Amino acid sequence: MFGIIAGLLTTISAMPQALKTIRTRDVSGLSLLMYTCLVVGQILWLIHGLIILDPGLILSNIVSLIINGIILFMLLKYQTKRDRNK
Amino acid sequence: MFGIIAGLLTTISAMPQALKTIRTRDVSGLSLLMYTCLVVGQILWLIHGLIILDPGLILSNIVSLIINGIILFMLLKYQTKRDRNK
Repeated sequence: MFGIIAGLLTTISAMPQALKTIRTRDVSGLSLLMYTCLVVGQILWLIHGLIILDPGLILSNIVSLIINGIILFMLLKYQTKRDRNK
Repeated sequence: MFGIIAGLLTTISAMPQALKTIRTRDVSGLSLLMYTCLVVGQILWLIHGLIILDPGLILSNIVSLIINGIILFMLLKYQTKRDRNK
């Protein structure tokens, strides 16, 4: 029960910034290394949640992974474009 | 094992932004509501981690709580000052 409310709150708290980035497509202030750490970390949290069958960990990490995965994809796409323009 | 590496990665990924805010003391771009959600959510994750005895959840949420607690304290202090100056 604590896990589900905790997951809901921490996921909600990260959403406005993430959704703003997806909406504006502005990734200039974001670090590729940090987002890679975040996405890999959330994949591991999801695996850990599935192993210990913790619904809070599973649900919150699925939602966060979709959102942060999109941002990481945008970061990779943007960086490739920037490199191409050099 | 997954939980500890996961906690390490997601905590590391959030540190540069958090430490920058603490160093610059600039909280103008941050939302009080979002940080309250985050800190309450992390307190609940910590309680959940202590109940299910999950070292990854416990360690990562203690570190994050200290950092985000300082930012929330700064946000509350800043908002009080701003309200006083009205």
